Amino acid sequence: MTTVRKERIGFIGTGIMGSPMACNLLRAGYQVTVYNRTKAKAQQALNAGAVWADSPAKAAQETNVTITCLPDTPDVEAVLLGSGGVLESATEGCLCIDMSTISPAATRRMGETLAKEGVQLLDAPVSGGQKGAIEAKLSIMIGGPAESVERVRPILQTIGRTITHCGPLGSGQMTKLANQVMVIHTIMSIAEGLAFAEKAGLDLETTLAATVAGAAGSHSLKVLGPRIIAGDMKPAFMVDLQLKDLRLVMEYSRQINQPLPGAALAEQLLRTLSAQGRGRDGTQALVDVIRGLGGGRVQV
Amino acid sequence: MTTVRKERIGFIGTGIMGSPMACNLLRAGYQVTVYNRTKAKAQQALNAGAVWADSPAKAAQETNVTITCLPDTPDVEAVLLGSGGVLESATEGCLCIDMSTISPAATRRMGETLAKEGVQLLDAPVSGGQKGAIEAKLSIMIGGPAESVERVRPILQTIGRTITHCGPLGSGQMTKLANQVMVIHTIMSIAEGLAFAEKAGLDLETTLAATVAGAAGSHSLKVLGPRIIAGDMKPAFMVDLQLKDLRLVMEYSRQINQPLPGAALAEQLLRTLSAQGRGRDGTQALVDVIRGLGGGRVQV
Repeated sequence: MTTVRKERIGFIGTGIMGSPMACNLLRAGYQVTVYNRTKAKAQQALNAGAVWADSPAKAAQETNVTITCLPDTPDVEAVLLGSGGVLESATEGCLCIDMSTISPAATRRMGETLAKEGVQLLDAPVSGGQKGAIEAKLSIMIGGPAESVERVRPILQTIGRTITHCGPLGSGQMTKLANQVMVIHTIMSIAEGLAFAEKAGLDLETTLAATVAGAAGSHSLKVLGPRIIAGDMKPAFMVDLQLKDLRLVMEYSRQINQPLPGAALAEQLLRTLSAQGRGRDGTQALVDVIRGLGGGRVQV
Repeated sequence: MTTVRKERIGFIGTGIMGSPMACNLLRAGYQVTVYNRTKAKAQQALNAGAVWADSPAKAAQETNVTITCLPDTPDVEAVLLGSGGVLESATEGCLCIDMSTISPAATRRMGETLAKEGVQLLDAPVSGGQKGAIEAKLSIMIGGPAESVERVRPILQTIGRTITHCGPLGSGQMTKLANQVMVIHTIMSIAEGLAFAEKAGLDLETTLAATVAGAAGSHSLKVLGPRIIAGDMKPAFMVDLQLKDLRLVMEYSRQINQPLPGAALAEQLLRTLSAQGRGRDGTQALVDVIRGLGGGRVQV
């Protein structure tokens, strides 16, 4: 049963994450106007009832809320502030929700520029991957004023399950980066733990069974441990995306002057995979880097 | 209701872990003879009905099964093979279960020496800490022949909840070390993740709420995250014990020639706490090392 809602949403960036998110908004009854650099990637959303726009400015026209879901900082800057961008057509009182994972500092700068024209920016990066996007179970970390967060909460509830207001603009991005710091360590945990166990001659399934429920337990061990044992390097989250997030982490850690020796090392080891042409493998492939250091068997 | 069982168990090492384990054996109806270097630490077991012996040899006398639960490799070597040790009194067909966390290679060597006298060694290190020992909820990782493992399983079921047969002698220790590799990375995860979040000005409770249920989730984040937020550095697991386990990890990784760059770095950072006189704090105190690197607030 679909309720037709008055609110029209501009949605810019219908990639792996954005496409299912736009579809979930349509399914919830919102009218969605989409724009994507490569039109073909918007097809799923168009099939689900979205209206096509020829530019970000046109997608944002006559909408109160524009959502962006883009690869990186410069993409968001171009779409919001560039030629043919959202700012060209947005009217006073409009809200932009940037659900990309980008620089917190750039987010705050863009927020100031938009505010001068009466447009408010919220940052709302997500965690949960493509599966979470498809199933509308994303964890959404929002930064911005509380009243604006409450205004968009009904929209976000149709695409995510956990919606956390993290603080002022930029806090969503910072929380996402803290999340990614934690994630890379849990991936290091299973990569070094299982490579060590394997080199020691242990049976990996038994090792997994003995460790997953105890002090060594983690989401990564539970989800990625069995994939490593099965030799399945398909991505739950791609190496190149984790590397992009770690670049943002290390950039921001420089800005706030916070050394992260472990995350820095993990970034270097993960980068090995990208250098070997395995950037589109899942992050569990880090186990092959550790295996390789020990001269062990490596999946390629 | 206590069933009196015929089987008599020698129990050597009634420390933080051994004392509640011996008490659980007594509670299950076993007759237990205890020895400990410092007799005062055996008092709880003696109060619970254990019989005192003046040496490991005397504790092992007239028992079929002797359990050792000792701090480190040399302690186990002295107790099993040294003067007044278990081997002096053990008779053919006896079993020794070493529940200490010690060197896998030394375990195999001791197993060979004992086997020449008809005494069989099993390695059965535990995970779960003092709380797990008290509540008889330890995870026990055993190495040794399957038929011997089955013979002692009823005994181990009275002190542990998960009993995993990991392979031949030494496999229990290797699995425990793999477990500790994983654990230190999850502690690094929360130390760097929360120190980064704090330096970025985020509210840590909100950060924890936004991250713990997702891809960043781990046992350490769930259990130790709230302690860090509360400034509670009391040990669930002590820094000095984790350092001892990491020494065993790094020793063994040298023997099998398996580089573990992340665990090696984590050991160095954790060692900072020991150097600062904080070896008896909980491992969550690693967050203070990372905070300190960034010039942030540190609990002492």
